[in-house]
Amino acid sequence: MFKPDEPIITSLFDIDFYKFTMGQMMCLLYPFVNATFGLTNRTKSVRLADEVRIEQLREELDYVRTLSFNKTELRYLRGTNEYQERMFREDYLTFLGKLRLPEYELEKRDGQFYLEFPGIWAENTYWETIGLGIVSELRNRTLLEKMTRAEREAIFKTGRLRLEKKIKKLKERPDVTFIEFGTRRRFSKMWQDYVIQRLREKLPSSQFLGTSNTHLAMKYGLLPMGTSAHERDQIIAGIMDDGTDDWMIKAILKNLNEWWNMYGQGLSIALADTFGTDFFLRVMTPEQARHWKGIRQDSGDPFKIGEKIIAFYEKHMVNPREKMIVFSDGLDIDLLFKLFDSFSKRIKCTFGWGTNLTNDLGLRALSLVIKAIQANGRGLVKLSDNLAKAIGAPEDIERYKRACDYDSSTVFTECKY
Amino acid sequence: MFKPDEPIITSLFDIDFYKFTMGQMMCLLYPFVNATFGLTNRTKSVRLADEVRIEQLREELDYVRTLSFNKTELRYLRGTNEYQERMFREDYLTFLGKLRLPEYELEKRDGQFYLEFPGIWAENTYWETIGLGIVSELRNRTLLEKMTRAEREAIFKTGRLRLEKKIKKLKERPDVTFIEFGTRRRFSKMWQDYVIQRLREKLPSSQFLGTSNTHLAMKYGLLPMGTSAHERDQIIAGIMDDGTDDWMIKAILKNLNEWWNMYGQGLSIALADTFGTDFFLRVMTPEQARHWKGIRQDSGDPFKIGEKIIAFYEKHMVNPREKMIVFSDGLDIDLLFKLFDSFSKRIKCTFGWGTNLTNDLGLRALSLVIKAIQANGRGLVKLSDNLAKAIGAPEDIERYKRACDYDSSTVFTECKY
Repeated sequence: MFKPDEPIITSLFDIDFYKFTMGQMMCLLYPFVNATFGLTNRTKSVRLADEVRIEQLREELDYVRTLSFNKTELRYLRGTNEYQERMFREDYLTFLGKLRLPEYELEKRDGQFYLEFPGIWAENTYWETIGLGIVSELRNRTLLEKMTRAEREAIFKTGRLRLEKKIKKLKERPDVTFIEFGTRRRFSKMWQDYVIQRLREKLPSSQFLGTSNTHLAMKYGLLPMGTSAHERDQIIAGIMDDGTDDWMIKAILKNLNEWWNMYGQGLSIALADTFGTDFFLRVMTPEQARHWKGIRQDSGDPFKIGEKIIAFYEKHMVNPREKMIVFSDGLDIDLLFKLFDSFSKRIKCTFGWGTNLTNDLGLRALSLVIKAIQANGRGLVKLSDNLAKAIGAPEDIERYKRACDYDSSTVFTECKY
Repeated sequence: MFKPDEPIITSLFDIDFYKFTMGQMMCLLYPFVNATFGLTNRTKSVRLADEVRIEQLREELDYVRTLSFNKTELRYLRGTNEYQERMFREDYLTFLGKLRLPEYELEKRDGQFYLEFPGIWAENTYWETIGLGIVSELRNRTLLEKMTRAEREAIFKTGRLRLEKKIKKLKERPDVTFIEFGTRRRFSKMWQDYVIQRLREKLPSSQFLGTSNTHLAMKYGLLPMGTSAHERDQIIAGIMDDGTDDWMIKAILKNLNEWWNMYGQGLSIALADTFGTDFFLRVMTPEQARHWKGIRQDSGDPFKIGEKIIAFYEKHMVNPREKMIVFSDGLDIDLLFKLFDSFSKRIKCTFGWGTNLTNDLGLRALSLVIKAIQANGRGLVKLSDNLAKAIGAPEDIERYKRACDYDSSTVFTECKY
């Protein structure tokens, strides 16, 4: 379970599947957008760059830049038909076949890593979950290396016990379904692989629905799953920001329409919280409410937001029981069951279960993100339903809050993961 | 390199790729043909059933019957586009998704295994390379188990040395290309995997073109390759045999046309020797000679048959340099180079290299085949350009020889592998 000599990322397919669905959109519709992604360690108390040697991080990132997609991986994407026949077009697959991940900028600043990925959005977007997987695992490797063998074994024993406990509880509730969403903050690649193996052995495919990790989905014959990320909303809003009153409404609608036009109903789970769910639910049209499968909840109080989503559907005369919420923020098994019990009789629910599923071995998981920070020269903003997760320059955040009638009083200010 | 506890076949994808291209044809055009495949050990001197325990063989065959194609494997086929866009149709993939391999009949008779696969052609065809891989590896496991560890190590050392020698020679001749065709008579699954790994590491993809093994092609991002088998010719001739004078000509043309209609130029390598290459070259039309990419040579004297193929193209005013011969019978590195030197200036050549590539470790490789023996109640025949390879009841063989103006004097009677 601990192979410090192996590179962390050995395949570009070791990435969240939504990078490909979003990636195709960028490649075909936004091929010339310039963007920068940047790493943020929200767990400020951990001085990451004092723990992990910068040379090691550089080595891992450089190794990724030698990788490319192979024939099998491109065929796998070409053969995807669970969401839509031929969802990936040949011109996109040709682009992917030639892709090497672009350069990064890395420095040590005040005990943290300054790690940025500048360049073309359609190319550097692939760094997100790969970069996170590297930083997360490298930190854990560093911690493990300092331990005795017995201490290391205790860590993995804890991990196994906690995982089996989760599985046991899930077996008692076969109606509760979920998707493994933990690539970005996994303890390690091998641990995620082990978790997936156990889930697959112990739970029926009607309960463990799939994984967001494309490589593991391929390896284990699972369904690769995913929705869409904040970067899409952030960047499209950013480049459309023309100072008019309703730019944000236009950006949200354009984004929804482009996604629908490309993937149809198969991938129609909207991410609602980028600029606050309240605003999103005011913008989404009744027609979209009827056609889209559902909404992903990724920040804020999930109980309150679940109620808002049900109210939204009811307002538009749509039966919530035909729609779905994908809860994906800060889940653990108890919260998962509580949310299921609160909502499942009124709206379909499923869960995108991340950090607590793939990084629960007793060591504290860091709250790391790699987020879009600028596009075509403009600073980007994410508000979310939890201002502790907000991203952007203070003056931009204020401007976006005004544009979205953002009500700070309704939101969390605590960040669990 | 020796794991006797593992089942030999752990995935139905561990099979020659041509089973899928032919399988789709059977599934869509011949779904109700009844057929039987049977094992023959052409190396009569080895009393296989005295060496290998029948219970072990049964255990391996039974395990295969628990397997099915998973999501990833079906996606991989769906995503195949090297030969033709969307070469596998959804109805065929749906059929494959439900497929379990049908029952077999196994007995011990006079020191050999009587092993037959009755049933529907579209279902039992998949037993061919899987059954062969099992019997071949099981026999080698039995031999290895009787050895000391040092003896076993010597076997693998021999294998490695011989492989490296082949690779060294190939590196000196980068113009000589080949495809690995050795699944059916491999020493073992692990050994074939090792061979592929070494070839892939050491030789450029312009020389080592791909493998017939679908699982290994997927695993290593190689091109899965293959042409077509005698079973197609045998069964279609068998079910069309209506006693008329020209039934065989009709069968060969129907077969060629159906293949062309399904796969077009991408897979247009004809197998010429089922009923004698002389006859085949008289039946193939000038138009087919122009359109088809080339011909596979699988029995008889390859030098003489190569000349016949060149003469065939010249007779039809086709430039042989635009056509290809795939040599696939009894190759070793010296024969391969000799054939290349004799033909490559006059016609494109490549090599489907089997037994001697994946089973050359000092232990004698058996000449095992699993061939179609009856279809819709009729005994089947294969003549080939080497009567030692002929299959069928003596009176049927004589009848087929007459139908094909088969000239016994031009053919080999020796069987190397």
